[in-house]
Amino acid sequence: MKNIPYRFYLPEEKMPKTWYNLRAAMPEKPEPLINPGTGKPVTADDLRPVFCDELIRQELDDHTPEFEIPKAILDMYRIFRPSPLIRAYRLEEALQTPARIYYKFEGNNTSGSHKFNSALAQAYYAKAQGISTLTTETGAGQWGTALAESCAAFGLDLTVFMVKGSYNQKPYRKDVMRTFGAQVLASPSDTTNAGRAILERDPETTGSLGCAISEAVEKAVTTPNCRYVLGSVLNQVLLHQSVIGLESYEAMMAFEEYPDIVIGCAGGGSNLGGLIAPFMRDTLTGKHTGTRYIAVEPASCPTLTRGRFEYDFCDTGKITPMAKMYTLGAGFIPSANHAGGLRYHGMSPIVSKLYHDGYMEAVAYEQTQVFEAAVQFARLETILPAPESAHAIRCAMDEAIKCRESGESKVILFGLSGTGYFDMSAYASYLDGTMGDTIPKDSEIAAR
Amino acid sequence: MKNIPYRFYLPEEKMPKTWYNLRAAMPEKPEPLINPGTGKPVTADDLRPVFCDELIRQELDDHTPEFEIPKAILDMYRIFRPSPLIRAYRLEEALQTPARIYYKFEGNNTSGSHKFNSALAQAYYAKAQGISTLTTETGAGQWGTALAESCAAFGLDLTVFMVKGSYNQKPYRKDVMRTFGAQVLASPSDTTNAGRAILERDPETTGSLGCAISEAVEKAVTTPNCRYVLGSVLNQVLLHQSVIGLESYEAMMAFEEYPDIVIGCAGGGSNLGGLIAPFMRDTLTGKHTGTRYIAVEPASCPTLTRGRFEYDFCDTGKITPMAKMYTLGAGFIPSANHAGGLRYHGMSPIVSKLYHDGYMEAVAYEQTQVFEAAVQFARLETILPAPESAHAIRCAMDEAIKCRESGESKVILFGLSGTGYFDMSAYASYLDGTMGDTIPKDSEIAAR
Repeated sequence: MKNIPYRFYLPEEKMPKTWYNLRAAMPEKPEPLINPGTGKPVTADDLRPVFCDELIRQELDDHTPEFEIPKAILDMYRIFRPSPLIRAYRLEEALQTPARIYYKFEGNNTSGSHKFNSALAQAYYAKAQGISTLTTETGAGQWGTALAESCAAFGLDLTVFMVKGSYNQKPYRKDVMRTFGAQVLASPSDTTNAGRAILERDPETTGSLGCAISEAVEKAVTTPNCRYVLGSVLNQVLLHQSVIGLESYEAMMAFEEYPDIVIGCAGGGSNLGGLIAPFMRDTLTGKHTGTRYIAVEPASCPTLTRGRFEYDFCDTGKITPMAKMYTLGAGFIPSANHAGGLRYHGMSPIVSKLYHDGYMEAVAYEQTQVFEAAVQFARLETILPAPESAHAIRCAMDEAIKCRESGESKVILFGLSGTGYFDMSAYASYLDGTMGDTIPKDSEIAAR
Repeated sequence: MKNIPYRFYLPEEKMPKTWYNLRAAMPEKPEPLINPGTGKPVTADDLRPVFCDELIRQELDDHTPEFEIPKAILDMYRIFRPSPLIRAYRLEEALQTPARIYYKFEGNNTSGSHKFNSALAQAYYAKAQGISTLTTETGAGQWGTALAESCAAFGLDLTVFMVKGSYNQKPYRKDVMRTFGAQVLASPSDTTNAGRAILERDPETTGSLGCAISEAVEKAVTTPNCRYVLGSVLNQVLLHQSVIGLESYEAMMAFEEYPDIVIGCAGGGSNLGGLIAPFMRDTLTGKHTGTRYIAVEPASCPTLTRGRFEYDFCDTGKITPMAKMYTLGAGFIPSANHAGGLRYHGMSPIVSKLYHDGYMEAVAYEQTQVFEAAVQFARLETILPAPESAHAIRCAMDEAIKCRESGESKVILFGLSGTGYFDMSAYASYLDGTMGDTIPKDSEIAAR
């Protein structure tokens, strides 16, 4: 082990030139997406009206290990990457742990999270195919912001359907997207059949992610030269997010370190899947053994820890293909008092398969435990974490405390996927003592 | 000139170990602060009830060039520094300029700006002296956030008097400070004589920076073991902020570049004074000649371009020492439609003196011009700038356009002092076309 700086940035020439497709190393591949109309695996033709051709190729390819990152995307990555790998010296000291704690910090870009890595790729491939407009949905707004920035960079129009509750609660997120040139509509809107139908039934609805997906997909397939894009869950998104893990791997090699435990929060699974990619490759191929991988999720949306591993729809409206994944049921919506993201009913098929096959662990935390860790972390490490990322912090701290008790000097790596600047109302409710915890009953989820 | 990466981070071992005191190189020193009671230069004893001893020493020393950065501060700097020096390749391309544009980006820390550099130093010296509590005022909230983080790091209590208008308009800023453990009071408050007197006269007032300073100073001198700290204007603050310039200088040396033009926004002058420090040293000592320095300010608060160079109070309440500086008059308050910071009526005595002696230029922009540049910059460079920082962007773009017209490949360096995540209402008013410009009449300012 070498002398480790507080923050380490790879030199530009060491940045990854290829993404890594973790499926290539998996002895058993994730099950394919199923076309619910035919009951058969989806084909490229099935997906073509919705996704760009190159992204379909990436989605369906489960054996090619490396995908070259196009130069135009690399040029954009160089504007905000590499992200730093940070040694949490102050956190270690406060916890009095012999563990060495590292975190990969993806929040230092205007989108505020790792989402920018995939948004740029998806916007680039759309532009390269001659597409002029993209549509997407956004909940908390990090994905919408990342995509708005990406469309500004590559010269694409963008319509974002933002869940009406968030739209009204977080007007500043909307204004960030507008600054980058996106059109932002509160969903349900009167611009789609899906939106109008929902508004007719319930004019006062605050919307849902499922409804926003329905509107974005409808808009994409009914607008000339338009495609729909998604910020997590899909194989293509995990592929792009592998840049997180590849940079972390290079940095750890430079330190002559190797993680004993890799920890990431898991909503749709893109941050976690990206972070673990090259380490899990070593595990799957036997190059390095003994590493533990921990997915951390909210107790109020406990997909891995309490969901079923089965085929389910990716959206609440049941218009998408079906994926074999851990799911709480396509109709599941977390309690209204759940703050932050990580609200998706399902989970990346890659992460689901690895978990099912015993390569990963999963743990669920209540949000008050998570915000307690977030505040302690902020005061020590000076970074205000996103509530999502704070799930990984909570777990890393608990593992470090176990090391203090056992006297083991384990190497812990976690993903700090984003910043919490737009989540201050949740922090305020934690500080004011008004934040509660809500754990769904078995009857509310597709429980095991 | 070497191959220049998009972003360049100095390796940790190249980070400055000393701050640079620009006054040491000035052939004519700034005039001393005057004690308005005695009419004589302030002494250390005059300042001792308000400031920490070491900070007083730094404030009054106009000849020692280097001040060692204590190890505890260096350790904190290493958590978020070095900040990147970024080559604005995409901006250059969009402007079709032969100029090479660099910016030093200070926004990638939770305070959102360069303010953290001095906040840490001031908190450290207070702790080292055995002080237990600090007080300060904050307007937009960046300084208050930076100080809250710093007090959390060194274990000090902090009371922040936040201008009531901002307190109500930017509740999230308040919640960030609370997350770091600070007590945040809307000013005027009922906790001080100054606050109560103002509230009695005008119970509906939204407060002012001048009033908040009065409350913070009163609280400091009436609380046991307490001191008051300030985020700009003072010599000590420019000393700490020299870390911005020193890192920029090292990075430029690594590129074998030297700026022809150095540009910074100027409110109280700490960001600008810090950025220019080592380059101006070269200018003043004749080591390198021909560099231009440009201070950029809002047309609605045109301290350098329209103010007088004279002794004035540093606060509206006229309880502080008097400084020889450019000033619009201690009672000046910018128009209510002025967005963002840079609202101070005066200017750092160091910056004022350099400007007065012809070593610097100054330019004022209307805010719609500034936000136009901010939006263009965000879409190209993916960073959402603070409105303050966007003043420097506007000027850098204009200088780069002049280079396009003249065909000169000048090297332009500007300071991107912070991010605009908490300024989205101002961005929204610009995007909606409702943002106006207000230029004060001569009768409203202490005009030349």
